[in-house]
Amino acid sequence: MTTPWQQRYSQRMKWMGSSIIRELLKLTEKPDIISFAGGLPAPEVFPVKEFEAATQQVLAEHGSRALQYGTTEGYGPLREYIVRRMSRYGIEAEPENVLITSGSQQALDLIGKILINPGDLILTEQPTYVGAIQAWRAYQAEFATVPIDDEGLRTDLLEEALCAGPKFMYILPNFQNPAGVTLSLKRRMKLLEIADRYGIPIIEDDPYGQLRYEGDHLPSLVALDAQKLNGRGVSGNGMGFFRGNVIYLSTFSKTLAPGLRLGWVVAPKEVIKRCVMGKQGMDLHTSTFVQMVAYEVIKDGFLDEHVRHIRRVYRERRDVMLAAMERYFPPEVHWTIPAGGLFLWITLPESLNTTQLLEKAVENKVAYVPGSAFDPAGDSLNTARLNFSNARPENIELGIKRLGQVFETAIQQGLTRETSPIVTDVQLLGVN
Amino acid sequence: MTTPWQQRYSQRMKWMGSSIIRELLKLTEKPDIISFAGGLPAPEVFPVKEFEAATQQVLAEHGSRALQYGTTEGYGPLREYIVRRMSRYGIEAEPENVLITSGSQQALDLIGKILINPGDLILTEQPTYVGAIQAWRAYQAEFATVPIDDEGLRTDLLEEALCAGPKFMYILPNFQNPAGVTLSLKRRMKLLEIADRYGIPIIEDDPYGQLRYEGDHLPSLVALDAQKLNGRGVSGNGMGFFRGNVIYLSTFSKTLAPGLRLGWVVAPKEVIKRCVMGKQGMDLHTSTFVQMVAYEVIKDGFLDEHVRHIRRVYRERRDVMLAAMERYFPPEVHWTIPAGGLFLWITLPESLNTTQLLEKAVENKVAYVPGSAFDPAGDSLNTARLNFSNARPENIELGIKRLGQVFETAIQQGLTRETSPIVTDVQLLGVN
Repeated sequence: MTTPWQQRYSQRMKWMGSSIIRELLKLTEKPDIISFAGGLPAPEVFPVKEFEAATQQVLAEHGSRALQYGTTEGYGPLREYIVRRMSRYGIEAEPENVLITSGSQQALDLIGKILINPGDLILTEQPTYVGAIQAWRAYQAEFATVPIDDEGLRTDLLEEALCAGPKFMYILPNFQNPAGVTLSLKRRMKLLEIADRYGIPIIEDDPYGQLRYEGDHLPSLVALDAQKLNGRGVSGNGMGFFRGNVIYLSTFSKTLAPGLRLGWVVAPKEVIKRCVMGKQGMDLHTSTFVQMVAYEVIKDGFLDEHVRHIRRVYRERRDVMLAAMERYFPPEVHWTIPAGGLFLWITLPESLNTTQLLEKAVENKVAYVPGSAFDPAGDSLNTARLNFSNARPENIELGIKRLGQVFETAIQQGLTRETSPIVTDVQLLGVN
Repeated sequence: MTTPWQQRYSQRMKWMGSSIIRELLKLTEKPDIISFAGGLPAPEVFPVKEFEAATQQVLAEHGSRALQYGTTEGYGPLREYIVRRMSRYGIEAEPENVLITSGSQQALDLIGKILINPGDLILTEQPTYVGAIQAWRAYQAEFATVPIDDEGLRTDLLEEALCAGPKFMYILPNFQNPAGVTLSLKRRMKLLEIADRYGIPIIEDDPYGQLRYEGDHLPSLVALDAQKLNGRGVSGNGMGFFRGNVIYLSTFSKTLAPGLRLGWVVAPKEVIKRCVMGKQGMDLHTSTFVQMVAYEVIKDGFLDEHVRHIRRVYRERRDVMLAAMERYFPPEVHWTIPAGGLFLWITLPESLNTTQLLEKAVENKVAYVPGSAFDPAGDSLNTARLNFSNARPENIELGIKRLGQVFETAIQQGLTRETSPIVTDVQLLGVN
């Protein structure tokens, strides 16, 4: 069966062969599987009552406006709210530095649209957010990576990687997706210093920054970069804070509700203007109704209280997962200990392949995301991402127990294989 | 003032210099201007009460689901509703042929993403929808055009244009934006026959099809194309109806509310799969909340009643505008008489330039869109689009009166200039 369209797909479609996020979301739909695969918030924490009150308020008072076309930049009061909230975290922006997007994913697509030419090199952490890889491959970007450790990006390896001449760096400094690690303050300073020296700007993606369960908030790259500029006396010229090296992305998906599809970009005004031109052709604007309802929910301080609640719930789940891993995982498995966010990262012995093991895991009614999905080169074969925000504590315990059994068996078989490499090779050669 | 980003914009940004839709939306914001510029529905017809009831229902019954991530394809019951509704209009699809998009504009962007390589030629009507030009220029498409007349696309000129080898044709058959004309049944058949013979597929954009004020509904291109295929006995193979030459786009923006940003694509399943991969990288999925609320509003037949109401309101406004034009426009101005939709198209004497005249119009507190915005080549300088759905009847009358005065004055001055061409040339050469 062919259609006239099959011979007509664009070159960029060749990058879209595997749709990992989607297949994973499908796994999570089977009710008997305990899934650590998705990146879903806990539905129990959604502020449904507050949304009921807010939608009534918005429709009763501004119904016609909420259902009408709006401006591409976004709903004015929401942009102002975002500016006020970010200033608490040291990000000094004006509303003209903020563009509302249809989730952070759209911000990534938009950045691809305004910045990436085919063949451009993008430098990311290894591993990095799979949605960014997917968005930018559609613009025929190439990727270079720098490994991470428990303090985030290995800045000691950064300069070597920059020699390849990336167009920009893409960094998730807080409770990184997928690995859960946080970039230390020292490395943030080092990263900015190197970025400045080599003239390579940064996309800072910060969906989880407010979901910190322990330790102190670390200043974002965009705030640190602005301080550096101020130190040189180039601010205070009425052009706003943002003329520096960092574009900052965030979202309401993890603090309010992902089903809204509501995120934002913070950038120099000139970049925001380009983004607005790009977004016009993409969806004209983000749903007015959604923007006005979200603003109504959060405008009087609700988000503070709600984020505290989410932190309590997710911290408990993280702790349950970490304790269960101590108890049920074989000693050969290592994992990160995230100070916030939704994910942690496990590393199995080199000989094991988590993509192959996923089939076994699903047979045992538990799921995760193989780490290779988050590696632009498709490596990191012995790693996996676990989400701890979505499942209830009792299920986390049970799911980790199941996973421990899968790993235990695999390691035993793997060790057996390692002790008989010749037989394995023979099998591989098809002799047996 | 420069930023590190300025030297980094992608090649496609060079196409984004003028952002016509956005500038126009800004014009419409000044309260003392009677604007025929935007493409806005009348806010008075928005079903605010129904949205109030539906949001309460959705949040009370399915709150957690409405605020959670969803699948990229869209909310199942909404896809099924769209299938049922389209079948009334002879479009026989299955839910797997339907992808929910964040407005029709996203469908255009998505088509660019999956189909257009830099330099690809797209064939459009002249004039055509400015949002399609904008979306596809970002993919570095080139454009060829075929003029329209009162029966729509001049199919007698089509074959010549097809010799340039366009990748696909983009057609708005019903009450076309911007010109308001409708493609006759005879020409629909001719268009499909030529498309088939030359092997050039069609994107059919139908945002206004249900807003017909007189005459009978004409079958859509996608339905006629499927009939043709059936006639050859290639259907009934369990693959669904859609393996033909036409991808069909529509939206709830004009029948329900544009502030939702809710549209859909109908295509062969294999094309939908590609679209899903593309959309994942663009915004993961369209707002679950918006999809569920819209479905709740329309699921029990409300849309029929509501569309009848909209038709009454817009037909009256169209009639008021047409009568006022008869009364106030100078005899040198010609216009189309739309049988539906939101727009009509005016043509001034060749010597006049509607972009230059827009300044005069705004001085006189009335606005329109210069026709060149809708022409990929930037021609059609003596034309303009007028919207009749948004302003109230008394303001339509007054706005057309003001516009008549602007045109009257311009034609008088224009005629003067035509009688003294040598002087004008001298001025142009800078001698005077």
